[in-house]
Amino acid sequence: MNRKQLIESIQRKRSCLCIGLDSDPAKIPPHLHGFPDPVFEFNKQIIEATHDLAVAYKPNLAFYESNGTKGWETLHKTVGFLKKYRDSVMLIADAKRGDIGNTSRKYAAAFFGLPPDGLDFDAVTVAPYMGRDSVEPFLSFENKWVILLALTSNAGAGDFQLLETANGKMIFEKVLETSKTWGTPDNLMYVIGATKAAMLTRVRTIVPDAFLLIPGIGAQGGDLDEVLHHGMNRECGLLINSSRGIIYAGSDEDFAVEARRQALMLQQKMEKSLAENGVI
Amino acid sequence: MNRKQLIESIQRKRSCLCIGLDSDPAKIPPHLHGFPDPVFEFNKQIIEATHDLAVAYKPNLAFYESNGTKGWETLHKTVGFLKKYRDSVMLIADAKRGDIGNTSRKYAAAFFGLPPDGLDFDAVTVAPYMGRDSVEPFLSFENKWVILLALTSNAGAGDFQLLETANGKMIFEKVLETSKTWGTPDNLMYVIGATKAAMLTRVRTIVPDAFLLIPGIGAQGGDLDEVLHHGMNRECGLLINSSRGIIYAGSDEDFAVEARRQALMLQQKMEKSLAENGVI
Repeated sequence: MNRKQLIESIQRKRSCLCIGLDSDPAKIPPHLHGFPDPVFEFNKQIIEATHDLAVAYKPNLAFYESNGTKGWETLHKTVGFLKKYRDSVMLIADAKRGDIGNTSRKYAAAFFGLPPDGLDFDAVTVAPYMGRDSVEPFLSFENKWVILLALTSNAGAGDFQLLETANGKMIFEKVLETSKTWGTPDNLMYVIGATKAAMLTRVRTIVPDAFLLIPGIGAQGGDLDEVLHHGMNRECGLLINSSRGIIYAGSDEDFAVEARRQALMLQQKMEKSLAENGVI
Repeated sequence: MNRKQLIESIQRKRSCLCIGLDSDPAKIPPHLHGFPDPVFEFNKQIIEATHDLAVAYKPNLAFYESNGTKGWETLHKTVGFLKKYRDSVMLIADAKRGDIGNTSRKYAAAFFGLPPDGLDFDAVTVAPYMGRDSVEPFLSFENKWVILLALTSNAGAGDFQLLETANGKMIFEKVLETSKTWGTPDNLMYVIGATKAAMLTRVRTIVPDAFLLIPGIGAQGGDLDEVLHHGMNRECGLLINSSRGIIYAGSDEDFAVEARRQALMLQQKMEKSLAENGVI
């Protein structure tokens, strides 16, 4: 999915919602355990109930890897199922990868390559610590995206990301400044946690045009209104993620209905803000 | 494997060699493609030929993930095969993971949990960018290790790791200083690239007792003698990795013999240095 398609989908769905498929076998409704692949069934029903409200889905790899080989199969099936919505949803592998050049090329093949070996995601989250040659292999695929960690939503973000460097900038600002020359707003986004919404103004001075993937609203305490207010640009420029708040909204047979209800609440706030900012 | 067992294995084998199983189907000898799982067969023969010379094996996850579900199976089988050498080799998942706390717990389960879902590695490499709560879940497993990226072997290490912070320390030094309070030398090691061997003296002033995993000798240009000279402490304190230099030393049916020859050359240099430093 390219930038134009993403913006069109945002305008058509009047939404910049990303749904995080952090699907945990221990947390899905009990009745699903009768299915051959309970987590896939869970994902399928969540997707079917929400695909007109979401412009992106984001499985976090940890939740699949922790189920071993069958978790990897579930992930392949989930991406395969999402194919039919492919023209209007971005598929993001929340993998936070990054390694030396020849190894990052292998990760890029794993996430961007075609099945059966590759997963054919549209985007992958990448950690910046190892620098340019750890990120560039992901940027060489056409119509694929790197989403680079800049300022994350967790408490530990303060340990290094907010450290001040010798020239007065914080590390996350150096990450934005340095990395924005590696790609373009057409293939490089950034993770900025909703719990640090006050920083969005500083982020926008460095990367005014980049899309930002915003985790941390809901369960992690980030405020949606603040994010929309400080983060949106004239093409929206935001993908706002909710995982637990949507997928575990219900815990019984009605889980997909409850998930849709939560997604709709978020979409309606987004629609209002998109209209106010002239995006729709 | 705990610290005592690791040091005993180093003393017994007179080696601190780690062999990187970055096994690529496109690079393994052609005759192996007749086996049901060519990469597993390759790993098995490398391990059989070198297990008395190596104290650790380190599959890099990218090389397995890029083969899809069957790559994940190969990894499970490789770890399973290494079980019989378990009392004298450390199994390191070079995965460079790291995520918010509840997600890092899932990664920790994936790498440290028991089969069939978990991989039961002894150690996993973790990226520091997301801070304390992204690392701690890995530190809560008994006799398991975090190997935190500090100063990596690639060119991009200069982009952020060598940036100077406001108090004059470089970022990688802040990572060492801050993170060493999260664990102990019994469960926390650091990645320090051999290509930055001159920095090892600075590293040792901050973490004198920690084990250091040193990638980058051989193909990446790092110098073994320099690493041994600047990095070894009185309990050795080093795991020195070679991947391509060993596993692709031969390209034909003699590949395991050639791999052993290369491993032996490295082991002999290590033995000399271990003796000079009074470790053996």
